[in-house]
Amino acid sequence: MKSITFDYKNTCQINGSELDKVQKELPKEIERMNAARTSGYDSDYASINLPFDEELLKAVCARVKEKKSLSPTTLVVIGIGGSNLGTIAVLEALRGKFYNSDQEVKVYFVGTTDTDHVNDIAQITERELATGNNIILNVISKSGGTTETIANFEVLLEILKNHRPYNYHQFVVATTDENSALWDIARKEEFAVLTIPARVGGRYSVFSAVGLFPLCFLDIDIKKLVEGARSGCALSTQKNFTTNYAAISAALIAHHYRMGMIIHDTFLFSVALESLGAWYRQLSAESVGKAQTREGNKINVGLLPTISMGSTDLHSVAQLYLAGPNNRFTTFISVAHNASDLVLPTYSEFESVVPAIQGKSLQIIMNAILQGTEKAYAHDKRPFVVWEISEKSAYYIGQFMQIKMIEMMYLGFLLNVNPFDQPEVEKYKRETREILRLS
Amino acid sequence: MKSITFDYKNTCQINGSELDKVQKELPKEIERMNAARTSGYDSDYASINLPFDEELLKAVCARVKEKKSLSPTTLVVIGIGGSNLGTIAVLEALRGKFYNSDQEVKVYFVGTTDTDHVNDIAQITERELATGNNIILNVISKSGGTTETIANFEVLLEILKNHRPYNYHQFVVATTDENSALWDIARKEEFAVLTIPARVGGRYSVFSAVGLFPLCFLDIDIKKLVEGARSGCALSTQKNFTTNYAAISAALIAHHYRMGMIIHDTFLFSVALESLGAWYRQLSAESVGKAQTREGNKINVGLLPTISMGSTDLHSVAQLYLAGPNNRFTTFISVAHNASDLVLPTYSEFESVVPAIQGKSLQIIMNAILQGTEKAYAHDKRPFVVWEISEKSAYYIGQFMQIKMIEMMYLGFLLNVNPFDQPEVEKYKRETREILRLS
Repeated sequence: MKSITFDYKNTCQINGSELDKVQKELPKEIERMNAARTSGYDSDYASINLPFDEELLKAVCARVKEKKSLSPTTLVVIGIGGSNLGTIAVLEALRGKFYNSDQEVKVYFVGTTDTDHVNDIAQITERELATGNNIILNVISKSGGTTETIANFEVLLEILKNHRPYNYHQFVVATTDENSALWDIARKEEFAVLTIPARVGGRYSVFSAVGLFPLCFLDIDIKKLVEGARSGCALSTQKNFTTNYAAISAALIAHHYRMGMIIHDTFLFSVALESLGAWYRQLSAESVGKAQTREGNKINVGLLPTISMGSTDLHSVAQLYLAGPNNRFTTFISVAHNASDLVLPTYSEFESVVPAIQGKSLQIIMNAILQGTEKAYAHDKRPFVVWEISEKSAYYIGQFMQIKMIEMMYLGFLLNVNPFDQPEVEKYKRETREILRLS
Repeated sequence: MKSITFDYKNTCQINGSELDKVQKELPKEIERMNAARTSGYDSDYASINLPFDEELLKAVCARVKEKKSLSPTTLVVIGIGGSNLGTIAVLEALRGKFYNSDQEVKVYFVGTTDTDHVNDIAQITERELATGNNIILNVISKSGGTTETIANFEVLLEILKNHRPYNYHQFVVATTDENSALWDIARKEEFAVLTIPARVGGRYSVFSAVGLFPLCFLDIDIKKLVEGARSGCALSTQKNFTTNYAAISAALIAHHYRMGMIIHDTFLFSVALESLGAWYRQLSAESVGKAQTREGNKINVGLLPTISMGSTDLHSVAQLYLAGPNNRFTTFISVAHNASDLVLPTYSEFESVVPAIQGKSLQIIMNAILQGTEKAYAHDKRPFVVWEISEKSAYYIGQFMQIKMIEMMYLGFLLNVNPFDQPEVEKYKRETREILRLS
């Protein structure tokens, strides 16, 4: 199995010496990151140490074993944003869009407070409980006070209490910061509790209990996942730029942003990776969408992360992408080896419909479309880089996610913003609280 | 049931007289559109006449009846872009994300040539056929020569042929332009054929057989759907601007685009409407993402359509949206009446976790979050409009989609581009064909 590849020869807006210049800013940051590798969870870079935490793995596996002994048929993950995006990304990458089919334990994600959508899931849990099956509720909120999460948790907890009035507490796992309001209640109610290190932000928390508990519960090989993440960390903190893809990628995105490429499109040529795109969108938007520099000066950084799906969105947004202004930097992502290899029959009468595809595999056709798109981009001088993930396995998905999280830390540094906070989110939350108070 | 509402008081970048000026450009276009109402399918505006076509409804219903007489358990829709986005949008809006649960006939959509994803669906069809159940393949390609669609169709047709060697043709319905290459083959093979009027483009085709056949097959009330579309047409072609929301919305988007709002974010506060967003994204990108004006002058219009989901994406992109540059016009969309009305229990111990939500309904909480977000946008002078759809019913979804398609025609007119062609898409297709020829 060949390793992950990264190709940046088509970044038309940059030459070697310019790239060198951007990269010259990075060594100090790489040093700081390497120093953080030995300081546990006590730095902004805390999240990079999660995959090395053997105690964490043990604690998660123990909880999984304990809850699986109740023979549950259904896991309901209640969480939003950083509390579920990473988990869904890994799950879909490894199991595909139909991740519940043919699985003994089904999983449902409850994010926002959409009454009809939550009701669909409430009905499923109601039915399971009524027929004597067990369900596990994993409520996840870093702060412990996320409005949507607590609201949905209460609705589902009430159903659980109705059906299991004496031992409902056995079926709940709360994942939250130590001493949060949710943590207090969980302790009082005797729910199982898994904690998130204080300085690990939601968008960097996939390798904490936030992601590891539900993934392990669903029989994803979390040991391989964090093993991959460790290799991603090694690749991305090395001082040799030639193979430090996270650093090069960050340097390229930052450079092009300064040249007016204010949109960063992640264009994924694999259906199962769509949610990995959604995860990256949050990672980018919250990390480098900032109103102030590190020093507190007004800046309004506006790198807009968009997600496109190949080849689906070629039939949706390609017209705009190839006709509109040159204000977009593109990261193409594809998978080298898929699990299946469907081949077309040889129907000679179809040769006139679409030439040159008879008897070829779907993978060859997909690759041709990706390459055709790259050629069209190159011809139009629309800058892009190309990542190829070896396969959709726990190891390689873990590796890629860790590379992308470290890339984001470099990008924050290069754009001179703090990639670990999200101060503006308070704006709408404050307004919402006031409206709720009056309603 | 109150009708659809449209509120544009928070479009901070425009005043009454400026809006008047933009609107003054529109009356001639409205006249042309009204003239098109009587010219059948013989104009660029052809699609607006689809909902009035009684013959079409009859033909679709007859085909559905014929194929349902085979008692199929599964419908597989093979199509990409305009060939499936509208259908998925309507289906999810009416049935939610779990649209296959508790349904007698399941539906699967095969779009791109992702080998693992297509394999998942191939396995399902294989299993159904092997156990004696029937499936229907609905292959949809306007041009009749879409690479992905034909490739996937061949893979699935081969499975069908293996299991039903003598009468496989009975289980196929082809939807395409008259006399296309696919049409020829369908005729030869004795597949059922439904045609798309030549001048109805893919992104405007949801009310043609493209959308109506699969939707009717899945027991969606297509009569109500087109009835709603007819009312949307009437609302959107009226000369009275005060209630012609399509015209006002287009005027506002165009005006703000000229002021530098190059991103148009559609922010949907309803999980079931996510695919409606994806449908609108194509409608916008292909219609007004243009390299040339109507007169052939270079222009590179770059209105980027993005889709955000409330409240989910407040935990993902809100930080950027409230911190980044003021280059975005937002269209908020919500639903007035949902089917369910989940209410939180009153857990006094949770009052300290999230205040003021005990005993309230999820709908009230969702509304508070939407209003809180609007307040934060208004405070930051980020312009937006607000649509409220009465309910997620066939009638109101049909109405809304027709309003949005006509809005897009007005927008093309105001930006002086042709909203009906998509010339740049050929660029990557040409390259792809060449790569396939050599592979």
